[in-house]
Amino acid sequence: MSKFENVTITKEANIYYDGKVTSRTVEFSDGSIKSLGIMLPGEYTFNTHDKEIMEMMSGDVEVKLPGAEWRTLLTPEMFTVPANSSFDLKIKSVTDYCCSYIK
Amino acid sequence: MSKFENVTITKEANIYYDGKVTSRTVEFSDGSIKSLGIMLPGEYTFNTHDKEIMEMMSGDVEVKLPGAEWRTLLTPEMFTVPANSSFDLKIKSVTDYCCSYIK
Repeated sequence: MSKFENVTITKEANIYYDGKVTSRTVEFSDGSIKSLGIMLPGEYTFNTHDKEIMEMMSGDVEVKLPGAEWRTLLTPEMFTVPANSSFDLKIKSVTDYCCSYIK
Repeated sequence: MSKFENVTITKEANIYYDGKVTSRTVEFSDGSIKSLGIMLPGEYTFNTHDKEIMEMMSGDVEVKLPGAEWRTLLTPEMFTVPANSSFDLKIKSVTDYCCSYIK
């Protein structure tokens, strides 16, 4: 188990897709932000504002990045999504993730 | 939105009931521990080790405490569960909660 120390966490969850995707926002002392989240099986599309590094820590996942084909991730695996774009996910089993927002 | 500052959060989620209940463990500088979690609709039973204060922040929830009848919570609402016992929940809508473990 790894830990983030000396952080601020927002108490209320971020809830998407009727609770099938939820996360908590974590702020670091350097001002950077991550979200720690869970995805239940399903198909999802997410839009990005900032560039995002998605660390899929566990779970059976396929991802479609902008302009690319669907591919299966071998979790734990990371992928990067450009700012102001979107990505699609097929979640086959409960997936634990960490999203880093890159300004 | 309220925040917990200067805390340590375990990166990996706690996952129960096939992902229908998940949480993140938050450690405070005084050594106390809380978990921030989400429950999807369903019926659940939880055992306690420490005394627990469950703050049901949002959601349509019924609770059955040891030796008591089922009752509907008017979230946000808290309830307390003795150490080394258990409680039952009927979750009718996505529920965001904060559990405090009391040593």
